[in-house]
Amino acid sequence: MSSSISEQLQTLGIKKHRPSGRDNDQMREVKITRNFTKHAEGSVLVEFGETKVLCTATVERGVPRFLRGSGQGWVTAEYGMLPRSTTTRNAREAAKGKQGGRTVEIQRLIGRSLRAALDLNKLGENTITLDCDVLQADGGTRTASITGAFVALQDAINVLKQDKNGAMKGDPIKQAIAAVSVGIFEGEAVLDLDYAEDSKAETDMNVIMTSKGGFIEVQGTAEGAPYTQEELNAMLDLARKGISEIVELQQEALAE
Amino acid sequence: MSSSISEQLQTLGIKKHRPSGRDNDQMREVKITRNFTKHAEGSVLVEFGETKVLCTATVERGVPRFLRGSGQGWVTAEYGMLPRSTTTRNAREAAKGKQGGRTVEIQRLIGRSLRAALDLNKLGENTITLDCDVLQADGGTRTASITGAFVALQDAINVLKQDKNGAMKGDPIKQAIAAVSVGIFEGEAVLDLDYAEDSKAETDMNVIMTSKGGFIEVQGTAEGAPYTQEELNAMLDLARKGISEIVELQQEALAE
Amino acid sequence: MSSSISEQLQTLGIKKHRPSGRDNDQMREVKITRNFTKHAEGSVLVEFGETKVLCTATVERGVPRFLRGSGQGWVTAEYGMLPRSTTTRNAREAAKGKQGGRTVEIQRLIGRSLRAALDLNKLGENTITLDCDVLQADGGTRTASITGAFVALQDAINVLKQDKNGAMKGDPIKQAIAAVSVGIFEGEAVLDLDYAEDSKAETDMNVIMTSKGGFIEVQGTAEGAPYTQEELNAMLDLARKGISEIVELQQEALAE
Amino acid sequence: MSSSISEQLQTLGIKKHRPSGRDNDQMREVKITRNFTKHAEGSVLVEFGETKVLCTATVERGVPRFLRGSGQGWVTAEYGMLPRSTTTRNAREAAKGKQGGRTVEIQRLIGRSLRAALDLNKLGENTITLDCDVLQADGGTRTASITGAFVALQDAINVLKQDKNGAMKGDPIKQAIAAVSVGIFEGEAVLDLDYAEDSKAETDMNVIMTSKGGFIEVQGTAEGAPYTQEELNAMLDLARKGISEIVELQQEALAE
Amino acid sequence: MSSSISEQLQTLGIKKHRPSGRDNDQMREVKITRNFTKHAEGSVLVEFGETKVLCTATVERGVPRFLRGSGQGWVTAEYGMLPRSTTTRNAREAAKGKQGGRTVEIQRLIGRSLRAALDLNKLGENTITLDCDVLQADGGTRTASITGAFVALQDAINVLKQDKNGAMKGDPIKQAIAAVSVGIFEGEAVLDLDYAEDSKAETDMNVIMTSKGGFIEVQGTAEGAPYTQEELNAMLDLARKGISEIVELQQEALAE
Amino acid sequence: MSSSISEQLQTLGIKKHRPSGRDNDQMREVKITRNFTKHAEGSVLVEFGETKVLCTATVERGVPRFLRGSGQGWVTAEYGMLPRSTTTRNAREAAKGKQGGRTVEIQRLIGRSLRAALDLNKLGENTITLDCDVLQADGGTRTASITGAFVALQDAINVLKQDKNGAMKGDPIKQAIAAVSVGIFEGEAVLDLDYAEDSKAETDMNVIMTSKGGFIEVQGTAEGAPYTQEELNAMLDLARKGISEIVELQQEALAE
Repeated sequence: MSSSISEQLQTLGIKKHRPSGRDNDQMREVKITRNFTKHAEGSVLVEFGETKVLCTATVERGVPRFLRGSGQGWVTAEYGMLPRSTTTRNAREAAKGKQGGRTVEIQRLIGRSLRAALDLNKLGENTITLDCDVLQADGGTRTASITGAFVALQDAINVLKQDKNGAMKGDPIKQAIAAVSVGIFEGEAVLDLDYAEDSKAETDMNVIMTSKGGFIEVQGTAEGAPYTQEELNAMLDLARKGISEIVELQQEALAE
Repeated sequence: MSSSISEQLQTLGIKKHRPSGRDNDQMREVKITRNFTKHAEGSVLVEFGETKVLCTATVERGVPRFLRGSGQGWVTAEYGMLPRSTTTRNAREAAKGKQGGRTVEIQRLIGRSLRAALDLNKLGENTITLDCDVLQADGGTRTASITGAFVALQDAINVLKQDKNGAMKGDPIKQAIAAVSVGIFEGEAVLDLDYAEDSKAETDMNVIMTSKGGFIEVQGTAEGAPYTQEELNAMLDLARKGISEIVELQQEALAE
Repeated sequence: MSSSISEQLQTLGIKKHRPSGRDNDQMREVKITRNFTKHAEGSVLVEFGETKVLCTATVERGVPRFLRGSGQGWVTAEYGMLPRSTTTRNAREAAKGKQGGRTVEIQRLIGRSLRAALDLNKLGENTITLDCDVLQADGGTRTASITGAFVALQDAINVLKQDKNGAMKGDPIKQAIAAVSVGIFEGEAVLDLDYAEDSKAETDMNVIMTSKGGFIEVQGTAEGAPYTQEELNAMLDLARKGISEIVELQQEALAE
Repeated sequence: MSSSISEQLQTLGIKKHRPSGRDNDQMREVKITRNFTKHAEGSVLVEFGETKVLCTATVERGVPRFLRGSGQGWVTAEYGMLPRSTTTRNAREAAKGKQGGRTVEIQRLIGRSLRAALDLNKLGENTITLDCDVLQADGGTRTASITGAFVALQDAINVLKQDKNGAMKGDPIKQAIAAVSVGIFEGEAVLDLDYAEDSKAETDMNVIMTSKGGFIEVQGTAEGAPYTQEELNAMLDLARKGISEIVELQQEALAE
Repeated sequence: MSSSISEQLQTLGIKKHRPSGRDNDQMREVKITRNFTKHAEGSVLVEFGETKVLCTATVERGVPRFLRGSGQGWVTAEYGMLPRSTTTRNAREAAKGKQGGRTVEIQRLIGRSLRAALDLNKLGENTITLDCDVLQADGGTRTASITGAFVALQDAINVLKQDKNGAMKGDPIKQAIAAVSVGIFEGEAVLDLDYAEDSKAETDMNVIMTSKGGFIEVQGTAEGAPYTQEELNAMLDLARKGISEIVELQQEALAE
Repeated sequence: MSSSISEQLQTLGIKKHRPSGRDNDQMREVKITRNFTKHAEGSVLVEFGETKVLCTATVERGVPRFLRGSGQGWVTAEYGMLPRSTTTRNAREAAKGKQGGRTVEIQRLIGRSLRAALDLNKLGENTITLDCDVLQADGGTRTASITGAFVALQDAINVLKQDKNGAMKGDPIKQAIAAVSVGIFEGEAVLDLDYAEDSKAETDMNVIMTSKGGFIEVQGTAEGAPYTQEELNAMLDLARKGISEIVELQQEALAE
């Protein structure tokens, strides 16, 4: 807290900008473990460094009322943090009787992003629910969630493909998607912020992209000073690099 | 619905891309009426064309628990739509017993943006609550809300300045802010989407900027196909143009 | 607050009982503006002096479960105050997650009164919802709501009449209704109390009547001392006078 | 249901207007049993014919926040119906997670009426809560509740009088109060409606009066046709008669 | 509180272990009053000494969704305490908007126990709801509730038997059940704890048995020191004795 | 489902009663992994075969209001199942806005049991919250939760011991506790039921014991036929055996 690794390194003349000692364009180690639990059609533990999220995909026949009879499927997401996934305990939302604003905001983002990965018409009248539950938080839980949820979604789609009564009309996956956070930390653009950076960053941006480099969602918030077009571009360049690495890891995991 | 004004005009050889006949870089008429109601410290009716939002600013002594004793102030926002501000009636959130996800997402955005306009230390231990209630909706309610709320906030700050016991330490306004929506509609970047465009746009982006052109928040979502860096840049250029016009109208209203 | 207009006038030998200087049997200026917003089937801004309420009427096909198949329609009402419609801010009911007792009581009164204006059998299996949202409060919001809601209801019925598939069986409006508050203020019966009177009145009474002078609802509460039969009669006489004036204004507005 | 007692009597040439065979100005048998349960400071079972309500009064030191330090006391009421107090079962409000509109309306009426019986300044900073729980319903539960609650309140005040640390400043009871329902049933004014009448009455009116004949609250609702001034007066005359009888029974019960 | 009956008796050389002076294996007086209220199919006031619970059974056609079409019936229970059934007032759960954990735990126990009394297949697609509302509490409300609810259930079954359209397939009652509490109080096993014992007992155990002595449910909790197998056996022996007495009283009540 | 492992084995003449092929007195493999996540004072993954529960212990200064100033500490528990920890997805309780009855019942049991392990006076005015979140369910989640929570509690106590300002007065751990389920499955008493057994068992019993063999809680429910004293004893014998094995594994884990 007082004297970070990066400060100590700088004192030693070894210039490292980030608390973790990572280069500005360096991701944390990303791990993707499929079949982490046994009941769900897709179950993925995704780790971005110390951030660990369990993403499960559940397939259910039928769709919400507003889609019934349309022949179209639906994808939705729910997000939660275990009460002690964080440094200090957060009150359990089930006990409080309501999901907080941050939770609602994040699960809407996850659902929206995953829907962009699919052709919902090809999905047929099936609903896939992605549950992203944070076991341990260290920054970037929403981008890790989207990254892991895509792999769980792919596994669930594969289960549906085996199902003769599954109502799918061809492969609904239009494009692979992944997500990463970028930001301005102590005046420099950095990739994949951990909590130590995230809590002090001047700008915090979440980027969701397709495997081909198109933008699905960009959300950039100035926490301190406003950011410039140049800073925005620098962050997007880092995001593009990070996402291409993540997409590769997703494909490797799915190939196993 | 079938044959829009723009299509009819195009048939007549008068090329207009947008349903409203506006140019791609043309704002709707923006009106800002101060002192719309009498009780609040700031009360502004903001109109972006047919979108009408009543923004009030309330000053209260004291701050939420997490800031007590810090000498710092707080700004928060709440958003609501009157049940029949929309084409079909939306169930009243107070009757449902909970604010919907969209409401929560929007009011967090408004609060975050307005906090960026202020130096909360200079505000002293006062809380300003911005209530943005949509009387009539036609697209762009969140950006209209932020635009109007800034004016109401300025009025409330002026009231606080007159108050000898108000605990302020100098003028807390760091920078004027305003917001506008941009998007990709039928393949082209357009400024200030109305509902007819918004409901069909391929990409929908909300941009909040300072009067000096810095970004406070950028939120861009691909509703259909992913968008490219070029499209992102085109949208941001339009936003910059729109916001400079809106900032001028804010200043004029405040000068009255 | 300390020395009211009426006290100053009395000091000057000009005897005026009421804070506003009105005669005891004098209404505030009542204004009724139709088509205040554009989406609703009926949309009326009603003003009783500084009290301003937006009343919208929404027509929806179908009826609540308990009436399905009965051939009968339904009318219901919801009431809300914008958080800063009042001198100090009231917490938003949607954020609190529940409507307060006063809100519930008022919206039941509005719904009951408006149902009394209609022959629900002639309405057919349609539901009309009256939303009364207070933009600015200065006493008498419930009686202003009923008065404005009747006009919005009439507009909505007119829309239904144009609708060939609307299921109505003749004109469902049985009788025009209007409402006004009366009370005992500083020992005298007064008509149409504003907030300055309402907050100090010994007795507060809301009267809803038909255009022909029949009672729909009388609710009279002693806030201080009990009231006598004579005082009750005096208040009802004032109410009768006020309502006949209001009914005339409603008819004028509907004739435009 | 098909052929009521009154119809049978009329067939026999014995003219009785009411289903119960009562005269129009005849109360049901009213019973007041004190000390019905043992823990509460006041505990009264009140019966109006087959309507049975348990009214308890609880004394607690201290007052709600808005009265702290004022030296003034508070009286509040809560109302509930046991799920099977009625002909068909009503869902338990505790299980539904919310009190219905009717419940809220009634408990506000009870609280308001009982506060009118007291000089809250003399009560000192004590809070008395009146719980009115309907064991069996047959019309008139709210007026029975007020009638029984007054007796429970008197008992609770007597307990407080014995308490040397009770903070009371003299006897806070200003006036005895009681309540009764009246209405227009098949064209005639009747006293103390039971369920058979209440469910079909053209007008339903609840009257709360002091033992000296002053009005505390009058609430009269036209369920069918509007009512006239003459009908209103006829109902109030019946209410006056009924209340004088009830007040006597209250005093007898308290004298035991 | 300071010097209990049992202490006084012991001082007098009359050795009595329990505050009430009862023998360790002695029940309080148990009273069972059928038809306590008039609307329900079964309505029983059960008293275990000063503990008084009103148990009603409501028969409704149809079953919850998960049983529709199964031909099987359902039995469920709800439990509540009147706010002032206890020494100090408990907040009304309907007003708090949620049933407490203790309530939920108890009503699940009651429902589970009563279902064990029936062959749900023979019940046919009917639902019986048992409402157990505590009018006065003095320990043992859950076991009194089960005991009284069985009698109300039997009455409701008898009503169903008379109903030609009732869908029952023979007598669904498999076995009579009753319940009693036992515990370790000041080192000795005692039967049917009242509040004075319950609040200080080292172990508190609720036992639900059939009339033939089979266990339906045993729930024993160490409040202080752990209990031994010997203590467990001693408590179960007392429960067996108590239940055989209660079953007899149930049968007597049903025979009336 | 149709032909279980045990049935197949029996067909082959290899007599195995249980679906899993375990002996009646055989536990599933129990694993206890400490420090499973990094933020909590105690973090234990406990596995009973395929049942996996993450138990964290959080230490916070201060106690609930009812204990303030008493010098005594508090231990409480919360329980949750991840939505897809089960065969089919359970709706997320945070999204439903309320914890279900089963959840409430279980977390009360966990809290009560863990409090029995401690001398709350020695704990000082600290609160320890045990969060038991089921990652994967296969029967016995509540007994696994208690078993794991005790280890997490011990770790949290050890952290508190290091804390000079921690307010503890000696070691608050009075006794180690552990829990196991037993039941009657197809007529025989079995130890540590998995889901295949649990869902069909005639009797289901949860037993919480101290390391020295005292009972903390016994909860035994007849799901089908009532159970006898002999069956009860047989189940308790199995529980005793299982718990002694579990306690050993807890101690081994704590010794690492």
